[in-house]
Amino acid sequence: MLYNFRNDYSEGAHNNILEALLKSNLEQENGYGLDSHCKEAERLIKNKINNNDADIHFVSGGTQANLIIISSILRSYESVICASTGHINVHETGAIEATGHKINIMESDDGKISVEGIKKILDEHADEHMVKPRLVFISNSTELGTIYKKEELKEISEFCKANDLYLHLDGARLGSALASRENDLTLEDITNLVDVFYIGGTKNGALLGEAIVINNKELKTNFRYNIKQKGGMLAKGRLLGVQFVELFKEDLFFEVARHANLMAYKISDELEHLGCEFLTKPVSNQVFPILDNELIEKLSEDYGFNIERKINDNKSAIRLVTSWATEEDAVDEFICNFKKLYK
Amino acid sequence: MLYNFRNDYSEGAHNNILEALLKSNLEQENGYGLDSHCKEAERLIKNKINNNDADIHFVSGGTQANLIIISSILRSYESVICASTGHINVHETGAIEATGHKINIMESDDGKISVEGIKKILDEHADEHMVKPRLVFISNSTELGTIYKKEELKEISEFCKANDLYLHLDGARLGSALASRENDLTLEDITNLVDVFYIGGTKNGALLGEAIVINNKELKTNFRYNIKQKGGMLAKGRLLGVQFVELFKEDLFFEVARHANLMAYKISDELEHLGCEFLTKPVSNQVFPILDNELIEKLSEDYGFNIERKINDNKSAIRLVTSWATEEDAVDEFICNFKKLYK
Amino acid sequence: MLYNFRNDYSEGAHNNILEALLKSNLEQENGYGLDSHCKEAERLIKNKINNNDADIHFVSGGTQANLIIISSILRSYESVICASTGHINVHETGAIEATGHKINIMESDDGKISVEGIKKILDEHADEHMVKPRLVFISNSTELGTIYKKEELKEISEFCKANDLYLHLDGARLGSALASRENDLTLEDITNLVDVFYIGGTKNGALLGEAIVINNKELKTNFRYNIKQKGGMLAKGRLLGVQFVELFKEDLFFEVARHANLMAYKISDELEHLGCEFLTKPVSNQVFPILDNELIEKLSEDYGFNIERKINDNKSAIRLVTSWATEEDAVDEFICNFKKLYK
Amino acid sequence: MLYNFRNDYSEGAHNNILEALLKSNLEQENGYGLDSHCKEAERLIKNKINNNDADIHFVSGGTQANLIIISSILRSYESVICASTGHINVHETGAIEATGHKINIMESDDGKISVEGIKKILDEHADEHMVKPRLVFISNSTELGTIYKKEELKEISEFCKANDLYLHLDGARLGSALASRENDLTLEDITNLVDVFYIGGTKNGALLGEAIVINNKELKTNFRYNIKQKGGMLAKGRLLGVQFVELFKEDLFFEVARHANLMAYKISDELEHLGCEFLTKPVSNQVFPILDNELIEKLSEDYGFNIERKINDNKSAIRLVTSWATEEDAVDEFICNFKKLYK
Repeated sequence: MLYNFRNDYSEGAHNNILEALLKSNLEQENGYGLDSHCKEAERLIKNKINNNDADIHFVSGGTQANLIIISSILRSYESVICASTGHINVHETGAIEATGHKINIMESDDGKISVEGIKKILDEHADEHMVKPRLVFISNSTELGTIYKKEELKEISEFCKANDLYLHLDGARLGSALASRENDLTLEDITNLVDVFYIGGTKNGALLGEAIVINNKELKTNFRYNIKQKGGMLAKGRLLGVQFVELFKEDLFFEVARHANLMAYKISDELEHLGCEFLTKPVSNQVFPILDNELIEKLSEDYGFNIERKINDNKSAIRLVTSWATEEDAVDEFICNFKKLYK
Repeated sequence: MLYNFRNDYSEGAHNNILEALLKSNLEQENGYGLDSHCKEAERLIKNKINNNDADIHFVSGGTQANLIIISSILRSYESVICASTGHINVHETGAIEATGHKINIMESDDGKISVEGIKKILDEHADEHMVKPRLVFISNSTELGTIYKKEELKEISEFCKANDLYLHLDGARLGSALASRENDLTLEDITNLVDVFYIGGTKNGALLGEAIVINNKELKTNFRYNIKQKGGMLAKGRLLGVQFVELFKEDLFFEVARHANLMAYKISDELEHLGCEFLTKPVSNQVFPILDNELIEKLSEDYGFNIERKINDNKSAIRLVTSWATEEDAVDEFICNFKKLYK
Repeated sequence: MLYNFRNDYSEGAHNNILEALLKSNLEQENGYGLDSHCKEAERLIKNKINNNDADIHFVSGGTQANLIIISSILRSYESVICASTGHINVHETGAIEATGHKINIMESDDGKISVEGIKKILDEHADEHMVKPRLVFISNSTELGTIYKKEELKEISEFCKANDLYLHLDGARLGSALASRENDLTLEDITNLVDVFYIGGTKNGALLGEAIVINNKELKTNFRYNIKQKGGMLAKGRLLGVQFVELFKEDLFFEVARHANLMAYKISDELEHLGCEFLTKPVSNQVFPILDNELIEKLSEDYGFNIERKINDNKSAIRLVTSWATEEDAVDEFICNFKKLYK
Repeated sequence: MLYNFRNDYSEGAHNNILEALLKSNLEQENGYGLDSHCKEAERLIKNKINNNDADIHFVSGGTQANLIIISSILRSYESVICASTGHINVHETGAIEATGHKINIMESDDGKISVEGIKKILDEHADEHMVKPRLVFISNSTELGTIYKKEELKEISEFCKANDLYLHLDGARLGSALASRENDLTLEDITNLVDVFYIGGTKNGALLGEAIVINNKELKTNFRYNIKQKGGMLAKGRLLGVQFVELFKEDLFFEVARHANLMAYKISDELEHLGCEFLTKPVSNQVFPILDNELIEKLSEDYGFNIERKINDNKSAIRLVTSWATEEDAVDEFICNFKKLYK
């Protein structure tokens, strides 16, 4: 295989991060996220989001972050609203249900949640014979690579506040979203608009790690109990702190995301130019071109990628993902080879 | 503070491990534990335990390993038997109960489970108004630093088999147990005697990571579903594979454990010589001397450690822990300072 | 209000049942379903289904029966397939998810499950990042009053067997289904075609009570533990036994269902004659006429019923339910009044 | 067998209750506890407890009441403190753990909870590595027939309030406790001293049914969602309302309890007179005489009862239970036969 565009976690970590791990390795630190590196990372993130009152916690992965956050918020009979394509609905092996909660599904073509969709679900849930929707789950960028504009997020946020719903944003690919050429949101906006979110490290240059940011005071109580109970508290929590210090002490978090996006744009712009259609408009580090099955088969001889969805008997949408580690040479070579195959 | 003996996860990772992470960093690998490093680590562990039929899975921490293993085994109404001091009973924030299962507690002074204790619990559970004990949880070394001799483990194993009970061994500190001067067990013995166990990396030289070993065929089915659902499947699973390759490609796993134990013996032998008593006989990397509260207070000015238990109004047992990273100079200095304080 | 057609549980119990309760009241019996009446009811049901190997258990309600059955079958990562209108999906306040399991929803217009629908869900669930569908939930009659023909149930049953799926039939209204003028199924057929089902008493003449019938040997193990754990085991289990003896010692179960259906047909035949359309074809004790909202409002001044669904801005489908207790005079009067309102 | 003293649910219901069921049988009522009988029963109970602000809900059994109440109160990481002999700890098949919560066990000889015992457990639970005790579970009368005096309950109540603990009283046998010759508590006292309790109907003259009384406003929110989700909401909720109206419209609840106690005293006074010792002092409808095993065996030829506990190789404590239905003649005959066997 020439190159793997299957995902944004094919390689290890950004070099700065590995260097920082080496440098701090023999310092004696407290366990369980109470070390000096986690403290420093918390301080840096609070600065970036311009919210000194937020609570910050580090866990090792996205499914873990989502199940800890969601189960910590909901009472037994409360449910979470999620797009049909949402990660918690499809790709977490029922992790949310395993903590006891129903997911109310909003059908969505672009991976995004709309106020109308939330409203419809609320209208259908009238009494105690049905669950009580209490939380809205969105991801930015979404599982289909789309992003929320400031106005959209604001509308959802206001609707949630007005309807006694919490709002949680899954930021596994938040770096790529905020670095998108179409983005008009900042970390500070997000902090102001959602009750809780997490900033993804794993898919943005770290070995592992997601930073949970809790803005709503009500959701902060005893949160570490939830982390510990669900197996999310690393004994050597420093491993997460050290990495997030590197990502946020300067601009590394955004820098690596910009690189990932640039590599994706290179591919999507060229394919668009060739006449390709896309499942969703390419704006972040995931590109979903719709291709003839024959072409897909030939491409797959040299490149790693997933088939996202069958479009019809002849065509499918594939998923190409770039990352901080994607080599520009490999991208150029991919484009070159693609052109040859694309008649 | 001069030195921290609070636990065996105060430092990062053994240098070999960091080197291996650096070296493999830019290789493109499959995600979720399906990479070449995990495969190689599995092969190496199967060799060490001399059981090619075992299933090996890597997860990031001990609580996570325990809750995934235990919840994957038990039906809703089944329970797990555990010593009163057991990690799952005391120090996992109800993680096992959060997956729906009762823990049947066997009172234990030395942290170990006995056949008599299991039998008593079985006798008390007669019908469907009570849970059905189905699994025995042991740890080696235990939370009180004690270890199981081969004969003891064999007796428990045989009793479990004869009584339709599964046996799970928590090996968070298995390295230290097997490297104990009193140990007569091998990894191969353990594989032959328990249905499932895990080999602790976090407390034995790794940044994080535990290797779950499933020997009983019945317990293997769809195990990866459980890991994913409980948030235990790292996207960059290579991080765990690379580390366990280092630990088991030669003898590093045992080497670092031997160092930890030697540092502990140095302390315990000297304290015994001075006339100290211990909560449990020191045989692994945890030492529990019983000291005057006054002495404890003075010691705590210079050293980090936990108070394990109040013995009486004047005396308490403290816990001193050593690790692969414990410096011999720091141990010597500790002993020197201890002698000055100890009348 | 002249009369209530809101549901089939507005009245108490059939007179025979009350008489039997009175008669047996002072007999001293074992508790928890181990009494002579439960034993006798089990024998009678086994005779009716012609399956002496079945296990029979009595619980107090439908949600309870469903949650006990489903949670007893599924491993943590397994899911249940259900029609979008299914009771467990909509009207049990997330009871199934509260036991830890995802419901995979099959969109359905008539409340029924199809083999194509199951197949589509199976095709979408490929690996351990998704739940593993393991059980199919159907109800007969369905929440929309429709019923399964023998050929349909056979096809579903065979598909399930061929695809390692269990099949559970919710029989809250099984009496009405089997007494339908379109029915060609027998209790014996059902026993042969599903792994587990329950026979509804609450909506068919009893004060309360559902009889769970387990046909598949694999699902029988320790079932009483599940009942007890979920709070479904009545101390005075005799209360359920006595009632099911009455329902099945002769033909009372079918007799009361036939009466309910006849009352429903009287209404639906007349409304059809008047030109009404229905949400689903009326074949059991639930009738869903589509009416002008204005008419609905007038009807609601004198009659109790629910609005099932908005059809468009002018029309809605209402739900009229009859039961063993529905008085023919009240039905006649309803029809008479309806005619006056229906221009 | 001459007579069964095995429990207080061997017979059906008090005649007044059956009469009321017959009388109300054909009234059309709302389902799910929203009928006129439940409303009237709520009103009557509020009067008896002199607390118009309480919320009252009816469910069918004690395990169900406990699991609904406890799971509705606790957050995921919170636990409930219970005596070692407590019903939720021993005889509910892990129902509480199945809702995700640990039970912290206080060793108890008499079935009662003490402030010292609670305090010890609180002291042992320091941080997020352990569950957070948040609720104290007591039963009155206890599983060993003992009762709480007003002063004791007050002390526990005050301690709980001062330590941010909720207090729940399981009143499965509350009738017998309040009718005890040693009792100095009233229903009104209990309402003032606990956050939530339930009044047992099943063991005090009803066919089935427990009345949950929520005094603490914080615990009232959306409680019906919990009942429905856990399968505790009967479609024909009237069945519970009708019965509690009978129990509380005059004095029936206390009357039947007094009879049960009188029958128990007759036995215990006579046995004490003969020189028998008891496991606990007999004050309610459960009597635990300690007898020679030989005598027990002979008694068991004619009488139904359980062996509570082995005392030594020769002696065991048995449990004799009386109820509203216990016939005085049978008690007299029992005493007569007992005397003959007792040397």
